[in-house]
Amino acid sequence: MQQHELRDLTRLSLNQATIDQWDARAAIEGCQRAGIPWIGLWRDKVARTGLSETARLVRETGIQVSSLCRGGWFPAATATERQTRIDDNKRAIEEAAELQTKVLVLVCGPAPDRDIQAAREMVEDALTQILPFAHQHGISLGIEPLHPMYAADRSVITSLAEANQIVEKFNDAHLGVVIDTFHVWWDVSVYEQIARASGHILGFHISDWLVPLPDVLLGRGMMGDGVIELRKLRQAVDAAGYQGPIEVEIFNRAIWNLPGDDVLDIMKRRYLEHV
Amino acid sequence: MQQHELRDLTRLSLNQATIDQWDARAAIEGCQRAGIPWIGLWRDKVARTGLSETARLVRETGIQVSSLCRGGWFPAATATERQTRIDDNKRAIEEAAELQTKVLVLVCGPAPDRDIQAAREMVEDALTQILPFAHQHGISLGIEPLHPMYAADRSVITSLAEANQIVEKFNDAHLGVVIDTFHVWWDVSVYEQIARASGHILGFHISDWLVPLPDVLLGRGMMGDGVIELRKLRQAVDAAGYQGPIEVEIFNRAIWNLPGDDVLDIMKRRYLEHV
Repeated sequence: MQQHELRDLTRLSLNQATIDQWDARAAIEGCQRAGIPWIGLWRDKVARTGLSETARLVRETGIQVSSLCRGGWFPAATATERQTRIDDNKRAIEEAAELQTKVLVLVCGPAPDRDIQAAREMVEDALTQILPFAHQHGISLGIEPLHPMYAADRSVITSLAEANQIVEKFNDAHLGVVIDTFHVWWDVSVYEQIARASGHILGFHISDWLVPLPDVLLGRGMMGDGVIELRKLRQAVDAAGYQGPIEVEIFNRAIWNLPGDDVLDIMKRRYLEHV
Repeated sequence: MQQHELRDLTRLSLNQATIDQWDARAAIEGCQRAGIPWIGLWRDKVARTGLSETARLVRETGIQVSSLCRGGWFPAATATERQTRIDDNKRAIEEAAELQTKVLVLVCGPAPDRDIQAAREMVEDALTQILPFAHQHGISLGIEPLHPMYAADRSVITSLAEANQIVEKFNDAHLGVVIDTFHVWWDVSVYEQIARASGHILGFHISDWLVPLPDVLLGRGMMGDGVIELRKLRQAVDAAGYQGPIEVEIFNRAIWNLPGDDVLDIMKRRYLEHV
């Protein structure tokens, strides 16, 4: 496949996880200064700025919200606790609507015990319950399969194949997948699964895989610093029909220690060079 | 599926990685003291004792060698370096034969650059070259798919599906898979893939997945200390027709700091309780 560069920043989005020290206000203003047209917001950082104030800033600056992170975390040991999670997801859907994004990202959560299969069924049960609510609010739910190293503590959905299968089973226009290069790059069937996701790709997240991996949770790399074939994957996602925002989502303590504006500068350059 | 316990230690094997401080002699003698009938040897530890001396100890003690770790590490940047790796794998096959084991475990290695697909092709090329040599020496090659978190630095073969596909493609009686619970437990298709491996399972390795994971490389847990459904997986492997040795392979610094005989005691008890 021929390599085509991205020529401008029109699809670039800052996922707030990349600059942890900024609340929603600081991140929106940072994107405005840097000419980054999209932002992926996190609920905790929105709460620090205030939901309605964040919504106002979004309207006034014209920065578009590519997604809200995150819903999910569905499996739990008791029916009561599972209902609490569902209620929280409904609040997340309302927040997404107020922030004028179309997508709530779902990190589906770990099993409460050793039974990973039962936990996967709890995920599907919860989706059944929240999808009508998502419809009412015009929000799409994006299942983000996480890297298998997070299977025990963050997500029982560990591959794009698995996420695609759930989406196909529900066959609901408001349910799709979010593809993150860090989570799926290792998969021998990743290109096949990206093609299979055509029509239900709700987001594309990028970062890089450093060698050696500095940390399980906070060891993601800036684009170009690792081994992921970012351009090849981005072109496959494009070829599957996705033309939406591309979120840079990097959990990395060293990057968090840099001034946010510097991170945005590096991010823009690396995006054009490597994605 | 009903849960059937293992009633004795006849299938138990100590993989030497579990007690890093012991060379081959110490490990063989430790297994003899503890009544553990099998051992999985590592080439570096065999070298410390000496190959022919280790072979002699194996003959004299009657401890059986379940496998030799490890061959593989095939992809490399140049044809010369790839040939060096192939030559080293041939030496490993000769060593396996001298140690009277039937199985050489293959950890296939990382890509030399960002092109993981090309590296996968190098693995297949190397298998084509070493399989005739394995035949001559009566050794079977067991592809061990590694957890995807090792895709960048240890193995481009990251799932049992992928290993099964290679084995089916070669359709060679001396090529199979080694299934390690730590590497495959997260996979939604693991039971399907274990059944698919029926007839070419050459080994079964066990350890547990601790939460949170203490370390990417040295964070494996003793059986029962983590979240892996070990008995369910073992029964699936049994149901697929595998009745061979079960190797305990735990890379964990805290366990390495315990006296080896204590580790064997714990290992035996946990094996009967959890596997």
